[in-house]
Amino acid sequence: MKLDELYALLRRRGFLWPTAEIYGGAQGLYDYGPLGTALKRRLEEAWVSWFVGRSPDYYRIEPAEIVPEAVVRASGHLENFTDPEITCDACHATFRAETVLEKVRPNGIDGLAPAQIEEVVRSHQVRCPSCGSTALSVPAAFNLMFDVPFGVARTERAYLLPETAQASYLAFARMWEVGRKALPLGIAVVGRVYRNEIAPRQVLFRLRSFTQAELQIFFDPEEPPGHLGSLADEKVPVLRAERRERGEGSVELVPARELVAGGLPEFYVDHLVHLLRFLRDVLRYPAERIRFFEKSDKERAFYNRLQFDAEVYTESLGGFKEVGAVHYRGEYDLRRHAEGSGKDLSVSRGTDRRLVPHVLELTFGVDRNLWTLADVLLGRDGDRTVFRLPAYLAPVAVGVFPLIAKEHRAVAEALTEQLLAAGIPAEYDEASSIGKRYARMDEAGTPFCVTVDGGTVGEGPEHGTVTLRSRDTKGQERVPAAELVARLAPALRPPRPSGS
Amino acid sequence: MKLDELYALLRRRGFLWPTAEIYGGAQGLYDYGPLGTALKRRLEEAWVSWFVGRSPDYYRIEPAEIVPEAVVRASGHLENFTDPEITCDACHATFRAETVLEKVRPNGIDGLAPAQIEEVVRSHQVRCPSCGSTALSVPAAFNLMFDVPFGVARTERAYLLPETAQASYLAFARMWEVGRKALPLGIAVVGRVYRNEIAPRQVLFRLRSFTQAELQIFFDPEEPPGHLGSLADEKVPVLRAERRERGEGSVELVPARELVAGGLPEFYVDHLVHLLRFLRDVLRYPAERIRFFEKSDKERAFYNRLQFDAEVYTESLGGFKEVGAVHYRGEYDLRRHAEGSGKDLSVSRGTDRRLVPHVLELTFGVDRNLWTLADVLLGRDGDRTVFRLPAYLAPVAVGVFPLIAKEHRAVAEALTEQLLAAGIPAEYDEASSIGKRYARMDEAGTPFCVTVDGGTVGEGPEHGTVTLRSRDTKGQERVPAAELVARLAPALRPPRPSGS
Repeated sequence: MKLDELYALLRRRGFLWPTAEIYGGAQGLYDYGPLGTALKRRLEEAWVSWFVGRSPDYYRIEPAEIVPEAVVRASGHLENFTDPEITCDACHATFRAETVLEKVRPNGIDGLAPAQIEEVVRSHQVRCPSCGSTALSVPAAFNLMFDVPFGVARTERAYLLPETAQASYLAFARMWEVGRKALPLGIAVVGRVYRNEIAPRQVLFRLRSFTQAELQIFFDPEEPPGHLGSLADEKVPVLRAERRERGEGSVELVPARELVAGGLPEFYVDHLVHLLRFLRDVLRYPAERIRFFEKSDKERAFYNRLQFDAEVYTESLGGFKEVGAVHYRGEYDLRRHAEGSGKDLSVSRGTDRRLVPHVLELTFGVDRNLWTLADVLLGRDGDRTVFRLPAYLAPVAVGVFPLIAKEHRAVAEALTEQLLAAGIPAEYDEASSIGKRYARMDEAGTPFCVTVDGGTVGEGPEHGTVTLRSRDTKGQERVPAAELVARLAPALRPPRPSGS
Repeated sequence: MKLDELYALLRRRGFLWPTAEIYGGAQGLYDYGPLGTALKRRLEEAWVSWFVGRSPDYYRIEPAEIVPEAVVRASGHLENFTDPEITCDACHATFRAETVLEKVRPNGIDGLAPAQIEEVVRSHQVRCPSCGSTALSVPAAFNLMFDVPFGVARTERAYLLPETAQASYLAFARMWEVGRKALPLGIAVVGRVYRNEIAPRQVLFRLRSFTQAELQIFFDPEEPPGHLGSLADEKVPVLRAERRERGEGSVELVPARELVAGGLPEFYVDHLVHLLRFLRDVLRYPAERIRFFEKSDKERAFYNRLQFDAEVYTESLGGFKEVGAVHYRGEYDLRRHAEGSGKDLSVSRGTDRRLVPHVLELTFGVDRNLWTLADVLLGRDGDRTVFRLPAYLAPVAVGVFPLIAKEHRAVAEALTEQLLAAGIPAEYDEASSIGKRYARMDEAGTPFCVTVDGGTVGEGPEHGTVTLRSRDTKGQERVPAAELVARLAPALRPPRPSGS
């Protein structure tokens, strides 16, 4: 679907809407309604199950989203977390530099100083998007963090977290004590972060408040985590930086073992494959819409030794969009916070080694993936609109209908309650025809519907059975109501990575 | 336990620690570690199950936590969300007025203007807590909201939400369309809110960032929600405002029907009872530690027609502390936002009535209750320390131990994985003696432990069975491992209100 059509559908069904909608909304902020809230929570659970569930030494924490200034000074955000802009001296409009320079610098302007950006503007004779003038200038960079100074006089400087990762780095020393004092140690956060975006846009893709799911794996580079094992033949869709720089822009499907043979560390490729399997096998993005875009030395942040962004092709946004990434950050983060805090963050390995652990970071944008799920899995199928979410992501797992409300309501309501009591998200619906009820559930992504009818409540051979209808096949079968929980529950649990 | 002892235990076990601990912490901010995060999530789920699960017309949403200025202007927070302070003209220290005046005004200073507070200071000859001077003054009130202006020039004024309730009021019009267009309609939020507290203290009781769980029930006052039914004889521990004003400060146990006979609306009493049952029967706070403290006309905010604060006696904080409340807010909120936004928020009832719905608000402080659970349920039992959490709140539901690691590890690890795959939070532990493993699980609140031993892996009559040990009784029994899921799962689901 096109962006407007998809957004209108999600808004009408109460997946999401603009924050403070009755006041005309607020740029870059959205509220999730009942279906969106449930989908978001299940998406988060699936991520936790797949990534945090990979090791008993990986832990989930929930940090506060405000940190004192010393933290963002040490992390470099105070100095570098900027979004350069361009102002027009003729019409006084202001724009994000990256947006204005999209055509002349398609790989972005990360790392360029204002003077260098001004040089790009001059050399390409870039014009103001608003009035067409070439009298453009690049002011001193503007920090994207929100500051929330504490106290009456607001003298204690503090900031809303711009990324969850910092909270995990801060927690490392405590978690070393709380855990087994062993590496690798994983610390995951699913939490809100905040950025004062100059130009929020593309609905859930550039927000001022959004949810990241990130796992930081602290490890000893001499014993890095992850071996390909049986997954060595997995074909990884990569767009290598070197090839791109040679002008060869197409995706290659490269077996994991060849990526290792070509020089990427095995632990790193292992995590690319793990992320690929999550996107393809757990979220069910079609394989051909996924690619791993390697950032070159010049494109990635200087502390990242390796960076592949996971991108998914979204029709509504007209291109591949980043939905996650794998960053090998080395020892940069713990070293900076050791310097900033004055606390030794090195750990003992065996009897005579101490080291500052390296960090492998797995990032995942929860809001972006929620949108991408809708983009990829929600669409027309003949005369119906179907959201083909995996059962374990569906906001409502089972729709429960009485065929005739006044005759079958009591049994259908009791069945709904039984399912809910067993932890299965069920929803009772008696409004309008069965066909219309199916249509509503299809649109909401509900994988199963059960109908209570005369057979269920009668004394005949169908006594106690209900019609179970599948969203995807539209097939119907007769099933004893008492067996529904045992039959449906396994499909409703998010996959775990064990056995990989 | 005393506050310091309890806090030290929770910190050591990784329930929580100060944010940015390696930088010396940040006042009024805490991070939840693995056990705290799991407990917090389960507590939130229990709240949702009990309150949102009460009606299919009650919905959970997840709003952004930033709102434009027009919202907090309409809600009154821009003008009134203040925490008066007192400064000392001699030593220049600053204090929360409520704290300094605790002894002379035990019921607080809500609603007093700075001049009135200054009058209280003069008339009681209050002294500076720091230097003892009586040269105290009361400056203009200080707003507790954090402002996060948007954009390069920060000209779009916006604020971090000071309470989740406002997000539900903003969502009413959209949810009316998304839902059944019927009253009562419930909108719940479990979310973070932010307050620039002058003096954060008492660990999780006065925070700068904290989580509220709030349900706003929009209803027609002619058909209010809730009937006592079979709960009319429930004894409600109340401290009525009128009695307090007469100097009779003790709690009475009053049957619900008598509260109604005495003039409280039945729907209101019904919700007091529902909250009482949650605190007593779901969270398992001892009945004698719970009371409902009625705020008088003078004590409650002017828009609250009725307010009872639910308070629980906490040993660590040395007194009854508010952990939730039931507010009858009338039509104040929707009327203010209708005026502020210019949007008609009245709805049709039948063919010829329109009304602005009234609001019944159920509030619940997630962090405060997490602390209170630890205060009330975590303690010494002979020579062990036990956290007697209900099974459905326990961070770890089942500890799985091999009796002898090298002999029973494989079977115990496989059993752990089976439990996890069935959605049961299980944790494998092979470190040190079985007794020490029980002790660690007791402290973490784990209700069940299973041990794999020679009988499990042998060919004898105990083949396939494990020892199941109960935290509370310390009793042990032999159970087939294959039956564990079916046996434990029902105790791990939070109670639902159906059948009440």
